[in-house]
Amino acid sequence: MPQISDKGRLMPESPIRKLVPYAEGAKAKGRTVYHLNIGQPDIKTPEVAMDAIRNCTEKVIEYSHSAGNVSYRKKLAKMYQNIGIDVNEEEMLITTGGSEAITFALMTCLNPGDEVLIPEPFYANYNGFAISAGVKVVPITSSIENDFALPSIEEFEKLMTPKTKAIVICNPNNPTGYLYSKEELNQLRELILKHDLFLFSDEVYREFCYGGEEHFSAMNLEGLEQNVVMMDSVSKRYSECGVRIGAMITKNKEVINTALKFAQARLCPPAFGQIAAEASLDTPKEYFDEVYDEYIARRDFMVAALNEMEGVYCPIPKGAFYTVVKLPIDDADKFAQWILEEFEHKNQTVMVAPATGFYATPGLGKNEVRIAYVLKKEDLANAMETLAAALKVYPGRTL
Amino acid sequence: MPQISDKGRLMPESPIRKLVPYAEGAKAKGRTVYHLNIGQPDIKTPEVAMDAIRNCTEKVIEYSHSAGNVSYRKKLAKMYQNIGIDVNEEEMLITTGGSEAITFALMTCLNPGDEVLIPEPFYANYNGFAISAGVKVVPITSSIENDFALPSIEEFEKLMTPKTKAIVICNPNNPTGYLYSKEELNQLRELILKHDLFLFSDEVYREFCYGGEEHFSAMNLEGLEQNVVMMDSVSKRYSECGVRIGAMITKNKEVINTALKFAQARLCPPAFGQIAAEASLDTPKEYFDEVYDEYIARRDFMVAALNEMEGVYCPIPKGAFYTVVKLPIDDADKFAQWILEEFEHKNQTVMVAPATGFYATPGLGKNEVRIAYVLKKEDLANAMETLAAALKVYPGRTL
Ligand SMILES: Cc1ncc(COP(=O)(O)O)c(C=O)c1O
Ligand SMILES: Cc1ncc(COP(=O)(O)O)c(C=O)c1O
Repeated sequence: MPQISDKGRLMPESPIRKLVPYAEGAKAKGRTVYHLNIGQPDIKTPEVAMDAIRNCTEKVIEYSHSAGNVSYRKKLAKMYQNIGIDVNEEEMLITTGGSEAITFALMTCLNPGDEVLIPEPFYANYNGFAISAGVKVVPITSSIENDFALPSIEEFEKLMTPKTKAIVICNPNNPTGYLYSKEELNQLRELILKHDLFLFSDEVYREFCYGGEEHFSAMNLEGLEQNVVMMDSVSKRYSECGVRIGAMITKNKEVINTALKFAQARLCPPAFGQIAAEASLDTPKEYFDEVYDEYIARRDFMVAALNEMEGVYCPIPKGAFYTVVKLPIDDADKFAQWILEEFEHKNQTVMVAPATGFYATPGLGKNEVRIAYVLKKEDLANAMETLAAALKVYPGRTL
Repeated sequence: MPQISDKGRLMPESPIRKLVPYAEGAKAKGRTVYHLNIGQPDIKTPEVAMDAIRNCTEKVIEYSHSAGNVSYRKKLAKMYQNIGIDVNEEEMLITTGGSEAITFALMTCLNPGDEVLIPEPFYANYNGFAISAGVKVVPITSSIENDFALPSIEEFEKLMTPKTKAIVICNPNNPTGYLYSKEELNQLRELILKHDLFLFSDEVYREFCYGGEEHFSAMNLEGLEQNVVMMDSVSKRYSECGVRIGAMITKNKEVINTALKFAQARLCPPAFGQIAAEASLDTPKEYFDEVYDEYIARRDFMVAALNEMEGVYCPIPKGAFYTVVKLPIDDADKFAQWILEEFEHKNQTVMVAPATGFYATPGLGKNEVRIAYVLKKEDLANAMETLAAALKVYPGRTL
């Protein structure tokens, strides 16, 4: 029997997937499981998107342009221009989700064996993309002690080697909810210029910034036009994760032209997804206002509820719809399993994502979990009540 | 300015894309350009697929299962069972096109530096997928002299090294239209077993077999259950290339479980595409009968027309909708450019794909072009008339 590859062996198992059987077990016992672990918003997809799909009159669903439909790219470029990001339709590739944009960026810019610095905790799938590309992830630890702010430039430089080729940031951040300030981004700018690196900026949560905070795109960092590659996606912006449409955006022509060759090999991004995504650009402002109001209410409620629990610390997330919270527990993986397997409160339990899965440095995140506030408020209230009750009786409690 | 990767530099430019400006030039002069170069069928997408899309009542377009919707996988498994391929829904991953299935197979089974043997001429994008995976393509030449039959087992063995890990076949073949016989596949079976290799069988043209020939799937090669990975796609079967739905199928559990980790990293295949693909399984038999009648009429017409031209040889393709034909010309790339740039017949011209792009061995295919019969018969007739006229006056004619 032929043997699988080292890449295959190295690919990490999603830490959440290990918990799925326990969640199913809880449900089999008739318990309600609140999913605080997922990144799938419960918000409706905009009507304009669904209408465009329902009114589709194409006769043959053909391959589109490998870079995505020109009509969509032009309209998307306008959207960026409206929010102060100056790009045109030649400076972007439409991708199969933001996921593919990240893979294209890595394949295009980094050689196997090259290193990419990523502040941890980070979106766990970056590991998978890096393994596919043969690239080494070098984590740089950010800490809940200072609410996951950008590590200092000195810390970055300490980890740099001749193989360091790029830095990835996710802004606003999954899993921490942290929103990088303009000052932090300018520090990063100096570093990128000094060492002539690529900066991959994952901005798929751009529209989710709270409390009057402004999002500052890496695309607007002066003098970094040839260094910055932005990754974007319609998944979260319009709650249409399933359509699989993202974008890779850069003013670096060599990067675009090279990434296009990878794009041509896989032929094109999904046709129906592009129809939905293009129509979504006409989503009325009220949709976003409603989403904003909903998320900020959830966030404020959740943060308050968490910080009221003894021994719990939750920074105030300024963006996305996640937070990483410190719990008075011995081991987040054990806790996440225990609460599903052995605990119930009023016949309810919760599923959380152990933060260990978001750190590349072994041993970190053991007393942290990621909580996504993608549930409606009543459910979130029940989930918080359940979590509080669980923490009181968890055998591995450290307080 | 940071430098792009070696992979980026190695990615081949599509040989057809170089011709696009010349085709546009011809159109700008008011000429009709018949596209014999493309793999995009002109056949309508089945109504059942379009209806399913138009009747979509989902409220939130969510991420699906990373392996694809269970309902689709179950129904797809039944389809395979009906054509004698015994698989179930656990033995497949739904992918973003057949393209992704090939990438997953390479990433899952081969290490960077490993070698994969592929009979040439072959589908040019295999090069791109191999470069992405860091895998080396070793071509084994099949020849128009014997209508592109499978090279002998001795030829395969001559090219094998300790790094040889897999063989890719495409059956029916793009670009040659060749359909491997059961005998040829059984020879391959011996070879695969003897050297304990993987066999990747690209069967995306399975439904396009002509003249009473039966398609024999590599999935049914006895004793190869752990070796064979089949790649499939709805792109050609239902003329829905844009929906981006394919499948990777194997009875090797370790391969499926490992490929699933790559699938989880990119989250899921397109949701609307899965809806269309699932509905397409109910396409009435008459649809395929019509498609069959249409293609066989086109094929017969085209083969006859080509073989009537002096110095031209076209094998009779038994599958897919392509043929590689030998022309009395000095250089297929030059010819393809010349016919667009300098030639016209009744204000018409044609675009062909130089076969050089389908050979990995430099210098091969110089007097061959690939012709796709995806045009309706009147257009095909005009295209053949134009080609015949062009060959008479082409300055690089070798006869
Ligand atoms: C930080 C981040 N980047 C990228 C993605 C990829 O999203 P998609 O491929 O759906 O666009 C996600 C999805 O959760 C994410 O959280
Ligand atoms: C031989 C072969 N394999 C795979 C593919 C990939 O098709 P898709 O990704 O649209 O399923 C094609 C497309 O032309 C092909 O010709």
